[in-house]
Amino acid sequence: MTPPLPPAAAEEIPQAAWTRDLKQSSLREIHTLLSRPGLLSFALGMPAEELFPVRAYARAARHVLRTEPGALQYGLPLRRLRTHVVELMARRGVQCTEAEVFLTSGAQHAMSLLGTLLVTPGATVVVEEMAYDGMLNALRPLQPRVLTVPSDLETGMDLDALEALLAGGERPALVYAIPEGHNPLGTSMPAANRRRLAELAARYGVPVIEDDAYGLLGYDGEPPAAVRALEPRWTLYVGSFSKITAPALRSGWVVAPPGMVQRLSILKQGSDLDVCSFAQRTLAAFLDREDVGAHLARLRGAYTARRDAMLAALAAHFPADARWSCPRAGMFVWAQTPGTDTTALLRRAVEEAGVAFIPGRAFCARGGERGGDALRLNFSRTTPDQIHDGIARLGRLLHPSGPVIALPAGFCLRGGAAAE
Amino acid sequence: MTPPLPPAAAEEIPQAAWTRDLKQSSLREIHTLLSRPGLLSFALGMPAEELFPVRAYARAARHVLRTEPGALQYGLPLRRLRTHVVELMARRGVQCTEAEVFLTSGAQHAMSLLGTLLVTPGATVVVEEMAYDGMLNALRPLQPRVLTVPSDLETGMDLDALEALLAGGERPALVYAIPEGHNPLGTSMPAANRRRLAELAARYGVPVIEDDAYGLLGYDGEPPAAVRALEPRWTLYVGSFSKITAPALRSGWVVAPPGMVQRLSILKQGSDLDVCSFAQRTLAAFLDREDVGAHLARLRGAYTARRDAMLAALAAHFPADARWSCPRAGMFVWAQTPGTDTTALLRRAVEEAGVAFIPGRAFCARGGERGGDALRLNFSRTTPDQIHDGIARLGRLLHPSGPVIALPAGFCLRGGAAAE
Repeated sequence: MTPPLPPAAAEEIPQAAWTRDLKQSSLREIHTLLSRPGLLSFALGMPAEELFPVRAYARAARHVLRTEPGALQYGLPLRRLRTHVVELMARRGVQCTEAEVFLTSGAQHAMSLLGTLLVTPGATVVVEEMAYDGMLNALRPLQPRVLTVPSDLETGMDLDALEALLAGGERPALVYAIPEGHNPLGTSMPAANRRRLAELAARYGVPVIEDDAYGLLGYDGEPPAAVRALEPRWTLYVGSFSKITAPALRSGWVVAPPGMVQRLSILKQGSDLDVCSFAQRTLAAFLDREDVGAHLARLRGAYTARRDAMLAALAAHFPADARWSCPRAGMFVWAQTPGTDTTALLRRAVEEAGVAFIPGRAFCARGGERGGDALRLNFSRTTPDQIHDGIARLGRLLHPSGPVIALPAGFCLRGGAAAE
Repeated sequence: MTPPLPPAAAEEIPQAAWTRDLKQSSLREIHTLLSRPGLLSFALGMPAEELFPVRAYARAARHVLRTEPGALQYGLPLRRLRTHVVELMARRGVQCTEAEVFLTSGAQHAMSLLGTLLVTPGATVVVEEMAYDGMLNALRPLQPRVLTVPSDLETGMDLDALEALLAGGERPALVYAIPEGHNPLGTSMPAANRRRLAELAARYGVPVIEDDAYGLLGYDGEPPAAVRALEPRWTLYVGSFSKITAPALRSGWVVAPPGMVQRLSILKQGSDLDVCSFAQRTLAAFLDREDVGAHLARLRGAYTARRDAMLAALAAHFPADARWSCPRAGMFVWAQTPGTDTTALLRRAVEEAGVAFIPGRAFCARGGERGGDALRLNFSRTTPDQIHDGIARLGRLLHPSGPVIALPAGFCLRGGAAAE
């Protein structure tokens, strides 16, 4: 009765053609590669575990499990948590209502759903040459045409280049921007540039996805208001609890027009059905019961010390021709070391110096053609002492032939002087 | 300098054309509509909250937060949890390895990622006329051509119809099947039909997505092995922790060939970056420490009593010409009441009788053209007494003109006799 089985191997199940090229994000490859114990890592963009509010979170979880009978049931997006998001948004200069807040399973899921909503087949999107690759990963199933604009190490996205594209007739489905605490560049867009980006979005009718994952981690006083505050009609704001509470909760949000929130909510049902209601309830209970301002101040204080340590260590140990950004928010310094192939350097750094970072090329939206001499250095997950030690070890690899010449501490691009 | 803003309202941000038709899933609409307190609800497919292992889960969460420093950090898929999945799969007759297990943010996310992997633009998919609408919701962004096959109330998917499609030259990107504890029909596919489905998949080279969310909730002895056990090459198995532990953990899995697991993992990074590592660790700690067999036996015992109560109540209170399925797994009875428009009945049931269910039409993949006289009745979330009470109230609405004629309890389609 049964005809002989065809010789198809399991991998021969027909799959969408574009998925043939799927390969691991460079970041995740490195995540696995660099998981060897004892490595001093400036690689991944992870918050410091010792700053997680573990005890307060455990108290909140216990409270939720004891007092909320539906805590482990399916659930609708939690209004209490949206109220907290509205309050957090006020810290970013954004006035919004709960109806404009859409809760997601983390910022990445927010980007994926926004991409699904905005990007039609054949559409164009604009990203910076150097940018967090999560947005392009999210858009991959939609296979858009990707246009890039350069970035400036002090001011972020090159708005002349963006305007030239728009004035030339391009009408991208979205422009992806990281105005505050840029990943990987460590830049923050000046207020005047934010106004210009907002104006361009409105003038040309092009939505900006504002990735503000690091916006609540500003170190030198209050950062300028988010672009969303300047142009609420054309800015779709993406926020995250990962960097300010803990990543494992997988909770983020979008601030968008209410009509769009409803569509996103339907798309989310198709994607993953439901919010992680236990994580949301616990997060809400945590925010109800703790002093959020004090918690954020504690994080900022610790990360400011780490950033300062990294800038001082770079000035002390990196070669004279190196340049780096001086972040006023976020978790990253971008360092350029002319003449050095940082992809090759990484293996030596891991094997000879026990230190890790991400080669700049990994963040290039143009297939790695730029950033070959750059390092993304995370400063959030190591102590100031570890930072001095690790940057010194990296510096020795970059100065193979002699002793390191100490430079004045705090020597920094943002001070207007390159380290030379 | 700034030209006047265009009159675009926020809702005028250009969005993908297909999203214009987005409307709430009927289920979610009803979720909101029917949230009024005091309603006796047979509507949603939720597990019983009082059977959630809340204390054991709380113990597991405390243990994880105390002993695992990375519990709230980003994390890779947890090997320990995949080991538990391999053990659960053995209970479904499936031999697999950890390399074939892909952990997801719930079964819905599994379907969405499988859809993204398998469905190319313009592709065809095959679903049953009556089926859980989550698969079609997941596929919506891909806009496939949807072909349907009928279902039999006793044996599930009509395999003659499926074979006719395949023999006629259709090569769908996937066939979506719910062989055990079908949602919404309450049917279970006999072992012989599973073998035939497996043969058809292999003969025509068409992958079957086997949604087995209810497979570990079998009530009359062990259910037959999953289709995956019969045809591991062409069956992509989707499992869920939602029905056997708790939905709020948002944890599910796929069993697929290892090469496909890797692609799914990359797609997942683009979709939501990371597993909810805290939920996964807590789930793993729960499974490490508790007697899973005893827990499943407790669930099965309670749900068997509820199913039996519903079948007896239907026999006692529903009209003589009604027919219903007799589920041996899952959470649903499908009842047909010839001549009754169950969509209209729902409003009366809620308003006059304080009882809720889902009208059959909501599950019809052909735009609601079938199922107009059917009710999906969930029996997992109400006690036997509530079930008798609620079905009696519904029965009075269906017999408006006179007293209910009691029928023998246990009168059931699966016994071979329709209730007439």
